[in-house]
Amino acid sequence: MKAVVLAAGKGSRMGKHFGRKPKCLLPILGLSLIERLLHIFQENGINEVIIVTGYQSELIQQKIASKQIPGINIIYIKNEDWEKGNESSLEAALTEIDRDEYFLLVMSDHLYDPHLIKEAVEKVQQKQLIIFYDDSVARNELEGALKITVDTAGKIFDIGKQLDSNLVDCGIMILKGDIKELCENSKDMKELSELVKFYSIKHSITACKVGSSYWQDIDTYENVHSARNKILRSLITQKEGFISRNFNRHISLKLTSYIASFNIKPNSISFISFLISVLSGALFFYKNPLWAGIAAQLSSIIDGVDGEIARVKFLSSRYGGYFDSILDRYGDVSIITGMAFYSLSAERYEAVLIIAVMAMVGSFMSMISKEKFHSEYGAPYLQRMYDGWTQYLPSSRDGRLFIIFLGGVFNQVFPALVILALLTNFQALYRLMYTVKKIKV
Amino acid sequence: MKAVVLAAGKGSRMGKHFGRKPKCLLPILGLSLIERLLHIFQENGINEVIIVTGYQSELIQQKIASKQIPGINIIYIKNEDWEKGNESSLEAALTEIDRDEYFLLVMSDHLYDPHLIKEAVEKVQQKQLIIFYDDSVARNELEGALKITVDTAGKIFDIGKQLDSNLVDCGIMILKGDIKELCENSKDMKELSELVKFYSIKHSITACKVGSSYWQDIDTYENVHSARNKILRSLITQKEGFISRNFNRHISLKLTSYIASFNIKPNSISFISFLISVLSGALFFYKNPLWAGIAAQLSSIIDGVDGEIARVKFLSSRYGGYFDSILDRYGDVSIITGMAFYSLSAERYEAVLIIAVMAMVGSFMSMISKEKFHSEYGAPYLQRMYDGWTQYLPSSRDGRLFIIFLGGVFNQVFPALVILALLTNFQALYRLMYTVKKIKV
Repeated sequence: MKAVVLAAGKGSRMGKHFGRKPKCLLPILGLSLIERLLHIFQENGINEVIIVTGYQSELIQQKIASKQIPGINIIYIKNEDWEKGNESSLEAALTEIDRDEYFLLVMSDHLYDPHLIKEAVEKVQQKQLIIFYDDSVARNELEGALKITVDTAGKIFDIGKQLDSNLVDCGIMILKGDIKELCENSKDMKELSELVKFYSIKHSITACKVGSSYWQDIDTYENVHSARNKILRSLITQKEGFISRNFNRHISLKLTSYIASFNIKPNSISFISFLISVLSGALFFYKNPLWAGIAAQLSSIIDGVDGEIARVKFLSSRYGGYFDSILDRYGDVSIITGMAFYSLSAERYEAVLIIAVMAMVGSFMSMISKEKFHSEYGAPYLQRMYDGWTQYLPSSRDGRLFIIFLGGVFNQVFPALVILALLTNFQALYRLMYTVKKIKV
Repeated sequence: MKAVVLAAGKGSRMGKHFGRKPKCLLPILGLSLIERLLHIFQENGINEVIIVTGYQSELIQQKIASKQIPGINIIYIKNEDWEKGNESSLEAALTEIDRDEYFLLVMSDHLYDPHLIKEAVEKVQQKQLIIFYDDSVARNELEGALKITVDTAGKIFDIGKQLDSNLVDCGIMILKGDIKELCENSKDMKELSELVKFYSIKHSITACKVGSSYWQDIDTYENVHSARNKILRSLITQKEGFISRNFNRHISLKLTSYIASFNIKPNSISFISFLISVLSGALFFYKNPLWAGIAAQLSSIIDGVDGEIARVKFLSSRYGGYFDSILDRYGDVSIITGMAFYSLSAERYEAVLIIAVMAMVGSFMSMISKEKFHSEYGAPYLQRMYDGWTQYLPSSRDGRLFIIFLGGVFNQVFPALVILALLTNFQALYRLMYTVKKIKV
């Protein structure tokens, strides 16, 4: 499947903030707009990308070539007439597209939600002509935007900046190669919107709402800020625990936003999180519960950053998930062992041994009861769907480390161990005897 | 897909051992031959089974009706002429088969390897006419057997008991509904073999070797014994550990063979194995390492029986696998905790706490490092393929419980804990840092 990326323009409005570089090279959270786009294309099975360059074409080509993305074949077309506008750039790209071929056309200076590209790819496969629009753009931003109007059948009726409409074109559309006939017959056309409008008269084009997917046209510094926030917000998933979603993420997303521009690998962050949990264990051992608790919570927060960085910079790997998971287990062990030694000074060692073992076992069981389900039933264990009221128990890692944090800060280390021991084993046994038993997948 | 089962005969040769019941009701490891066949059919997607009965037809129908097998539609056809032989029984079944339909024909008094039925089902789908044969039958058993000869193209040339051939018919073939034309035209034919032989003249039938699959024609008490052994041997899988394969299975298969005829659920056996590991932990706690070690090993052996019974009696379930796995973890914890308490009398409690925690963590890690792989990579962790030389380390559950057994019997409980702690964590870290890292699935 082919995608055409228009990257020939100058993006003059950003000039003062971004020097003289083309806008598609603008880095957001450690990746330039066009690199991000190529990664999203790759994840969605687009294997041929035609990039039309103009302004500073060598620089764009250089920057992209320095980051290999396997499985994507890139064709660069330099549009010498780039100053004439996007219509001429599309025309240049059409030499690589067959007349009966459907293709994706996107602007290189926009940010797109991977879900939006995924939806578009599916519609290319279904051979639909489409323009994506957004009807939720703020009134004060409507003025300069390219807008569309739609007829009663949901087809494009008109396109233009002057239209009285709140349906804003998102700069992503699906066209067909036969649009080149129109280009050949109307040499005096200047605007891409004009071309598409004429094309839509003969071949009706469907207007498709972007729905819950995000996108962002990047013209100003405020747009950059907003784009960054949209990416960061998309990292909070529904399947994570209460503490993680409502507390840890507020901090970890800030950290991610800060370190994304550095060249730090997700596995290095997993390892740092592990080291901090070892430090927490050591602090408990050396009778410093306050800082030990804080270190445990810090480790929990940083445990979120590795995954965030991996997703933001398209560095996710199965080994990364495996590595993080195994290190987390050893991190838990280190903290609980430290807590056990700390408790020995006040409690009988038999009680400590029993409770520490139970807390350790329970924290492992919390994971095993889900992973074993996954391998046995061939589908992930959905806590929100299966766990009933026990989904609110803080027995996942974010909840457990929060209990340890509280136990450390309020110097109630042994009670925290007891709570962990009861909570986690209860959860595992509840799953064994009740929730998993009744699941039919 | 349809299968025809011929269950009309009397099986007179077994009479003296089995009373007056039809041979297909002969129980082997807790399931009658015909029930086993229906289970295998169900697992391989055969949804319509035509059972031709004659001798004691009501009894057969009654016995099968008492054991519901979901997803299989059974049609009973009573062949009043059953004493005329199998040819007349097949003829009776053909009323339910269309002329252009391929179907599986099997004898109800044979034992078949599920793999053999699976292979046959695939060949029915490919619309092949086939007779399965075995060329490894002992010379002294050739005499009374139905044999085939094959031409140079691998097609059936002749069929008969008198042939000088060592290719024995296995009683499983794939035929087509148009064989009924032959039945109508040759009313005086007595033998099924004769019918098939005539059919093969016009429609060439391929002779297919059973290969590594087992089968057994059941005529004598020795055959029953041999059939039972073939099923039991098939339970030993390649993926289990050294101790399990070479030691535990010898005992667990005997237990399975003994208890298969009782109505004991696999989950009950898992629970008994768990209780014995709790007993082992308690015996360590009460300073009886000898019997504690023996109990640990016994629990390990019985831990194999649940799966054996489940497979022998077609009672496998995903919940059963889940239940067994979670109980095993708690069983391990119980034993290691007992060992830790036992060690406290001789060792410093700090050392015991550290080593016990490490041994516990390692025994969990042994599982987690495989299960997490499964969920992350979407394929099971193949120890024999990935683990290199570390596959020979006794770090799986069978190996670990054997170390505990030795530690108990020779009263070296703490050293056994130390070995467990080092071995299992080494294995997990080796997987993390070496084997999993280089796997590309």
